[in-house]
Amino acid sequence: MTAWTGWLAEQRTTRETAGLQRTLRPRQAAEDTIDLASNDYLGLSKHPDVCRAASDAVLTWGTGAGASRLVTGTTTLHADLERALSEFTGHEAALVCSTGYHANLAAVTALVDRHSLIVSDEHVHASLIDAARLSKAAVTVVPHNDVTAVRDALAEAGGRRAVVLTESVFSVLGDASPLADLADVCAAAGALLLVDEAHGLGVIGEDGGGAVRTAGLAGHPNVIMTATLSKSLGAMGGAVLGSAELVDHLVNRARPFIFDTGLAPAPTAAALAALRLLRDRRLSPAGIHRRGGELAERLGVPRSAGAVLSVPMPSPGAALAAQADALATGVRVGCFRPPSVPDGVSRLRITTHIGPDDESWTHALDVLTAAVRRCRT
Amino acid sequence: MTAWTGWLAEQRTTRETAGLQRTLRPRQAAEDTIDLASNDYLGLSKHPDVCRAASDAVLTWGTGAGASRLVTGTTTLHADLERALSEFTGHEAALVCSTGYHANLAAVTALVDRHSLIVSDEHVHASLIDAARLSKAAVTVVPHNDVTAVRDALAEAGGRRAVVLTESVFSVLGDASPLADLADVCAAAGALLLVDEAHGLGVIGEDGGGAVRTAGLAGHPNVIMTATLSKSLGAMGGAVLGSAELVDHLVNRARPFIFDTGLAPAPTAAALAALRLLRDRRLSPAGIHRRGGELAERLGVPRSAGAVLSVPMPSPGAALAAQADALATGVRVGCFRPPSVPDGVSRLRITTHIGPDDESWTHALDVLTAAVRRCRT
Ligand SMILES: Cc1ncc(COP(=O)(O)O)c(C=O)c1O
Ligand SMILES: Cc1ncc(COP(=O)(O)O)c(C=O)c1O
Repeated sequence: MTAWTGWLAEQRTTRETAGLQRTLRPRQAAEDTIDLASNDYLGLSKHPDVCRAASDAVLTWGTGAGASRLVTGTTTLHADLERALSEFTGHEAALVCSTGYHANLAAVTALVDRHSLIVSDEHVHASLIDAARLSKAAVTVVPHNDVTAVRDALAEAGGRRAVVLTESVFSVLGDASPLADLADVCAAAGALLLVDEAHGLGVIGEDGGGAVRTAGLAGHPNVIMTATLSKSLGAMGGAVLGSAELVDHLVNRARPFIFDTGLAPAPTAAALAALRLLRDRRLSPAGIHRRGGELAERLGVPRSAGAVLSVPMPSPGAALAAQADALATGVRVGCFRPPSVPDGVSRLRITTHIGPDDESWTHALDVLTAAVRRCRT
Repeated sequence: MTAWTGWLAEQRTTRETAGLQRTLRPRQAAEDTIDLASNDYLGLSKHPDVCRAASDAVLTWGTGAGASRLVTGTTTLHADLERALSEFTGHEAALVCSTGYHANLAAVTALVDRHSLIVSDEHVHASLIDAARLSKAAVTVVPHNDVTAVRDALAEAGGRRAVVLTESVFSVLGDASPLADLADVCAAAGALLLVDEAHGLGVIGEDGGGAVRTAGLAGHPNVIMTATLSKSLGAMGGAVLGSAELVDHLVNRARPFIFDTGLAPAPTAAALAALRLLRDRRLSPAGIHRRGGELAERLGVPRSAGAVLSVPMPSPGAALAAQADALATGVRVGCFRPPSVPDGVSRLRITTHIGPDDESWTHALDVLTAAVRRCRT
């Protein structure tokens, strides 16, 4: 046994002792559970138009982009998607990356360096935390959604470039960010507000144009946005949105964009088709909010700002039990336990989907109400 | 104009003055140039079996994985690909990530921390450099392919966990790494050797099984491997390969794996189909090496270990001119200038492809020989 194999074994034992060991469980293509765990809120990953666009793209373009975007990996399909994204969200320009993770790494590392300041909400996603680390900027973590704390932290910036990190709809708790107030504070301090719309795009606004556009902040000189194509749009990939100058800067300076193969044709075309369905109002996120409201009421928790409903449970064990209970009766939900929660509270993470028909939805409501009641006590 | 827009404009002016401004140029689906710039060496991104597998996967699974791998984003397709990858490369287990970049970030950050040591070849790819930064480990950069320097650097590890970073075929110069010697040095020092096979998988070995397997190092307790599915396999995505314990560790600890949506079905299925073609010997990388040898001889440069032929040029201008010359006569090649080269030397980066028929290939040889001769003098 080498030192390395010993260390891996030791790490595993530690995880097992703490009840934190996780394993991958492959799912089948056809399952008869109702999915309220994935982020495919609008069911777009199975929409016939989206699927047709993806399989057509494979026939036209092949299965890969072949190279990084600056070599030969930019197709007119990427350009079309970038135009559609920027138009839909109200920004001047967009840059498509391979994942939402890449988009956050690219945006943050190209904008700040060791001489800069990042002010980060304590609930932001791992990809933004990693982006901040990778940038080597000084990082001030502020209490969740605390605008005054952001203002105070920015007052310490001195002459440094400063970026504030937030999410429009937070990925774990499902609550919203005070975007307009944050934008004001940033404008006053000459700082940039980066809003991760991973859970806002396709969900917030009548047509799903996102929280930044809905708040009238798209095009604001102190506001930029990142997004993922892997959640409401049902594909994979990510994007950074802002001014043409911003995108030009990223193309030249963002290592996680430059040194990465372009997004494959199938997900590029899928995201484009999904956006067009939303733009043409052939699909709307209204059902997410209606169903989300029903579910929140039944479970006695606050409504979500988006599609992610967070249901606090008394213990990790209770959360796991409720999840298992629901699955046994045909409803799949997520479960977040430490260390994947920002506040130590274990919870069910239920995503509202418009895919299931009304009968299935009513069944899911009953199943979840019963499972949560049983396991909360 | 805000401070931020002023800064972006200033940055752009600096790039333009230095002749380093780059822009994206979207390509069409049908181009009549011969592609010797992309990394689709085997032409698999357009292979009918690979394309059919991808479009079938869209119909069966939809266009996205829907969630992170630990939530509901692991399908049996991912499990099949992981089995095929590990069997083909001779490792016990594999973990598929969304990009090769993610794979490197995941492997490095899950294995080392601020108390560890990374010894990195000076030519490794941006994704490994970023991975090392993100891990916060101490980093010693050693001269290119210098095994003695690696040994000396490891001697300074003391009790720290140490990882050595290299590539089997380097992405810029196309030369090979002394894997067997590095593995010996790592084993003697109790360090782990991480070999990035981005340009080795599908290229090295009779069937394309990679340099690690070909050197008899797959399964070596001190050797792990990363790969990308976006180059010879013609898809997108990445993988980490090693022991089952390693993969289990990554599933539990690698943030760039855990907090990222699973690879979409189309590229997953495409990579699997591509691997099967290689495994079943329906396709072989032999043509890459034969053609690469011809090209090296004609251009008077050393042969490449893989598919990447590096052709030094006297100046950035000469490299650009030769590239433009070749493109004007129908052959697309890459061009690397500072700061994208490890040694300050501008070069053409020509990738050998087996896709073009013999007539096209002969034409490309003539075009490139003439373009390089003209622009070298
Ligand atoms: C808030 C947030 N940002 C970024 C990401 C990363 O996006 P992707 O999965 O496309 O890498 C996610 C989820 O995965 C997320 O929830
Ligand atoms: C050596 C090396 N490692 C990793 C990567 C990243 O792989 P991907 O493009 O799949 O992110 C690349 C190329 O992009 C590479 O050349």
